[in-house]
Amino acid sequence: MAKYKTDLRDVFFNLFENLKVQDHMVDYGENDLKDIISQFDKFAENEIYTCRVEGDEVGVKLTKDKGVVVPPSFQKAKEQYYQNGWFALGYPEDIGGMPAPHSINFACNSIYVGANVAFSMYSGLSQGAMNVIIQAGSQELKDKFVPSMMEGRWGGTMCLTEPGAGSDVGASKATATPNGDGTFNIKGVKIFISSGESDLYENNIHLVLARTPGSEEGTKGLSLFIVPRFEINDDLSNGAFNNVACTKIEEKMGIHGSATCELTFGGQGDCKGQLIGKEHEGIVNMFIMMNEARLLCGIQGESQANLAYQLTEQYAKERSQFGKEIVHLPDVKRMLLKMRAMSRGMRSLILYTSNLFDLEKKGDHLAEKELALLTPVCKAYCTDEGFQVCVDAIQVHGGYGYCSEYGIEQFARDTKIATIYEGTNGIQAMDFVMRKILKDGGETFKALGEKILASLGNSSAGQWKAESAMLAVSMQKAQSILENYGKKAGEKSYDAVLASSTDFLSYCGNLIVAWRLLDGAIMASESIGSASDEDKRYYESKIVDFKIFCQHYLSRNNGIAQSILNFEQDWTKVEV
Amino acid sequence: MAKYKTDLRDVFFNLFENLKVQDHMVDYGENDLKDIISQFDKFAENEIYTCRVEGDEVGVKLTKDKGVVVPPSFQKAKEQYYQNGWFALGYPEDIGGMPAPHSINFACNSIYVGANVAFSMYSGLSQGAMNVIIQAGSQELKDKFVPSMMEGRWGGTMCLTEPGAGSDVGASKATATPNGDGTFNIKGVKIFISSGESDLYENNIHLVLARTPGSEEGTKGLSLFIVPRFEINDDLSNGAFNNVACTKIEEKMGIHGSATCELTFGGQGDCKGQLIGKEHEGIVNMFIMMNEARLLCGIQGESQANLAYQLTEQYAKERSQFGKEIVHLPDVKRMLLKMRAMSRGMRSLILYTSNLFDLEKKGDHLAEKELALLTPVCKAYCTDEGFQVCVDAIQVHGGYGYCSEYGIEQFARDTKIATIYEGTNGIQAMDFVMRKILKDGGETFKALGEKILASLGNSSAGQWKAESAMLAVSMQKAQSILENYGKKAGEKSYDAVLASSTDFLSYCGNLIVAWRLLDGAIMASESIGSASDEDKRYYESKIVDFKIFCQHYLSRNNGIAQSILNFEQDWTKVEV
Repeated sequence: MAKYKTDLRDVFFNLFENLKVQDHMVDYGENDLKDIISQFDKFAENEIYTCRVEGDEVGVKLTKDKGVVVPPSFQKAKEQYYQNGWFALGYPEDIGGMPAPHSINFACNSIYVGANVAFSMYSGLSQGAMNVIIQAGSQELKDKFVPSMMEGRWGGTMCLTEPGAGSDVGASKATATPNGDGTFNIKGVKIFISSGESDLYENNIHLVLARTPGSEEGTKGLSLFIVPRFEINDDLSNGAFNNVACTKIEEKMGIHGSATCELTFGGQGDCKGQLIGKEHEGIVNMFIMMNEARLLCGIQGESQANLAYQLTEQYAKERSQFGKEIVHLPDVKRMLLKMRAMSRGMRSLILYTSNLFDLEKKGDHLAEKELALLTPVCKAYCTDEGFQVCVDAIQVHGGYGYCSEYGIEQFARDTKIATIYEGTNGIQAMDFVMRKILKDGGETFKALGEKILASLGNSSAGQWKAESAMLAVSMQKAQSILENYGKKAGEKSYDAVLASSTDFLSYCGNLIVAWRLLDGAIMASESIGSASDEDKRYYESKIVDFKIFCQHYLSRNNGIAQSILNFEQDWTKVEV
Repeated sequence: MAKYKTDLRDVFFNLFENLKVQDHMVDYGENDLKDIISQFDKFAENEIYTCRVEGDEVGVKLTKDKGVVVPPSFQKAKEQYYQNGWFALGYPEDIGGMPAPHSINFACNSIYVGANVAFSMYSGLSQGAMNVIIQAGSQELKDKFVPSMMEGRWGGTMCLTEPGAGSDVGASKATATPNGDGTFNIKGVKIFISSGESDLYENNIHLVLARTPGSEEGTKGLSLFIVPRFEINDDLSNGAFNNVACTKIEEKMGIHGSATCELTFGGQGDCKGQLIGKEHEGIVNMFIMMNEARLLCGIQGESQANLAYQLTEQYAKERSQFGKEIVHLPDVKRMLLKMRAMSRGMRSLILYTSNLFDLEKKGDHLAEKELALLTPVCKAYCTDEGFQVCVDAIQVHGGYGYCSEYGIEQFARDTKIATIYEGTNGIQAMDFVMRKILKDGGETFKALGEKILASLGNSSAGQWKAESAMLAVSMQKAQSILENYGKKAGEKSYDAVLASSTDFLSYCGNLIVAWRLLDGAIMASESIGSASDEDKRYYESKIVDFKIFCQHYLSRNNGIAQSILNFEQDWTKVEV
């Protein structure tokens, strides 16, 4: 059976050679940062990856006496994760954290999520909820909740979805009635709540969107509440049951180790919550969590693809058919090269985007806008394409890939959800085209385009004529599509724009990833002369990645552009 | 929850308006044939579809006392299936069959497989094995095996794969040693044997590839044996255990109701088999089964996609978000229109291909060659694209699609295996390019191309300028690709051809399905004038299908052609 492996050489290339993230740090040098990642990778291999398949087989259970019970092997992994301080990575020292550039944090997160996506959801949601408390909560709330969440005694969740309110969050019906003492009575049912309850934590801290009396309809009437499963005593021990009951757990295609709960708030008695942030600013505060959660979704796609690729490459080098290892069969070689180019390409996109956080913190205003632009691309593109790489992993493994024993088909099952939650990929495409491009008149998109043109203008890019020409044409056509969209938007034909926005996001994903790989290939070709044999092989593979990506993925943009520009009939008016 | 539905209008259009299969029949008229299909559809809805989700949840179990036990609900369904005579459909009357054109048989098979693919495997494999006995077996073997298999007392299997011999069948190690009395001692282990054992049948009749003493290596040394699980007494009752033991069943991504067995032949005592056909002609005789099994694989993709589409369309018309049914959201409309065009397109390809059997029987020599050409396209294209439609069904259903409760994610899990078994899709692409095109100098492919050009020359095709032009360009580029392949083959650079054969199969699938839909659209546009309101709506939808298919699928051929023709580097020589 293939062995866990992270392509650390490629992670380090992106971070330290291409993005030079070490320049953001004062306290740590490049080697310190590499050490952190390498250590975390070993930890993930030994403690997190090891309970990946078991978590899938055993799954979570809703029991009468203990509530939601996670796979037993998760308990030890969780203890180790917190005790070793990995949960604290990236947080400031004053709350017990270990500061690190956002990009280092994302690199570790990718390793973590890749090793066991279901397991990673518990602490991931906890960090998301804690981030909201840190950024939007009063000092009282911070003092009450953050220390125990940092310690891993309590876990966090985000509760948005209701049976009639999925993509349409504004249709939420849960209510919050003031008790007069600063607390609110919460009542309602939330569904599809990841990590909604579990015996991994003593207490579950829910961030709940609910409507105060007299609030207007839609998202603007929603406020955010912090609602613990058990009331909290002054000494931070658990008090009485707060009437947050897990009334169902979902059987799902994948992430069986992650508890997807229906939570009933105030079903059989009072359920108390406290307002976090201002009334009616619930959706804004929830988006503190959502934006990062969307990038984490992208990481799910990217990381599962990268690990699935590593296992598949090993399998193809070991499995023999027709008297040779199957890696030598042309069709298998094609699949592997495509999988690698896409997986590494997504990694380069994710790490580039994570670095924008660090640039933004340094006051780079464009970085902030670019981050907003790239967030839906990371989310939707990396989950769609990441899923596809996982499906290809099954294909290369043949019958063994379809069987559960090798843990390969689990990647596809675990990854598919990432195209749906945190806003479906259709919602991401809408956000990308309408809010991130058309709303600022295409300014941020244009600025990104100039970066791409600058890379194309690099003298090294000239050595890959066919690929560079393809990228240039793809840039031009993107412009034509945007002009077309602008015209339609001007006529208020928004539906006609939205009918192809998913295709356009995919188009831009191809374009941007090709650019990231071009940037990598340029750097590789410039470094190759003086490199060691091992590095030389790596740098050569980076050039291959770029070429393969252009041949197999960027080439798709031809057809997508044609489908958007050459078919003007408005299908949104046609009945199905 | 959405209700089972078959798009019978579209099935009938293909069979009776487009292909005019009723012309092959003497005994039945169009209405009789429609009756058969409608009755079978009701049967499938009430008896087969109803145990689809349960079959997935319960799965098969290997027990100590009863061997392999199928989901309990399968027992009744199986009794009904045989008792109602559906197993006998398409077989000659002298063996208790009910003759029907092959196309009618395929149409019913598509309904059957769509309703419950795991269940359909038991009788499907039985028919496959029986077909080999009928075509290659001696009268003695026919008399011994066929009646009980027709009655459903015994089931059949095909045993090719071994642990070290998957795609590479020729590496099989199982042995057959003559006993001197006409029987052979069979010894070996076969894996991934669908329906390998089950309590649905009193006896399991295995067709086993094995090597007689002194046989040469590779496929040419293989012979085919008929090996029952229990010896057969003269009165056709079960005799002693024949030492065919199911030693393991596989846990899989899907088709949980279908038993995928490891079978050990002669592990703890003699296991007797009889030669079927001539010695060393095992692979030829197995291909009697394989060719049809490959088409059945294609039907798995096509039919699962069509049913998944029907359920998804209903869901989208019922589920509200943002104050309207989600079918009205542009991105959902796009997904639905694409799913319908692809699902119906695959249906038109499958039914067109099934009709070639009937034309072949009438002595149409070209039909025979076209059938051979289209078999790998049906198998690989319909399973790859069918899987994708099933994935889209999850996407439209959102969180509900990912949860098991609605039975939607099951379609994707059940369908994925069809891209792997009966020869992986990579093997199909190799067969398509090397054996079905290059071997006859492209003659059959050219003849098919002329049919496509004839449709394009139809005056009605002129009304869809963009689409028809796209199809014509696609035809031309296919020619360029083939010239390129011919050149490479001439230089014996076969690996360079094989490196893009999967892409080229996909290219041709797009082309051929677009043509089938063009043919349908032409007929629809010619029939629309005098049609009833209901028919008018249907005919209009056929024109939409063709346009959508060109816009979203045929347009892909641009990029595929570019990737094959404009990148001449031979990646097969690059190390991964």
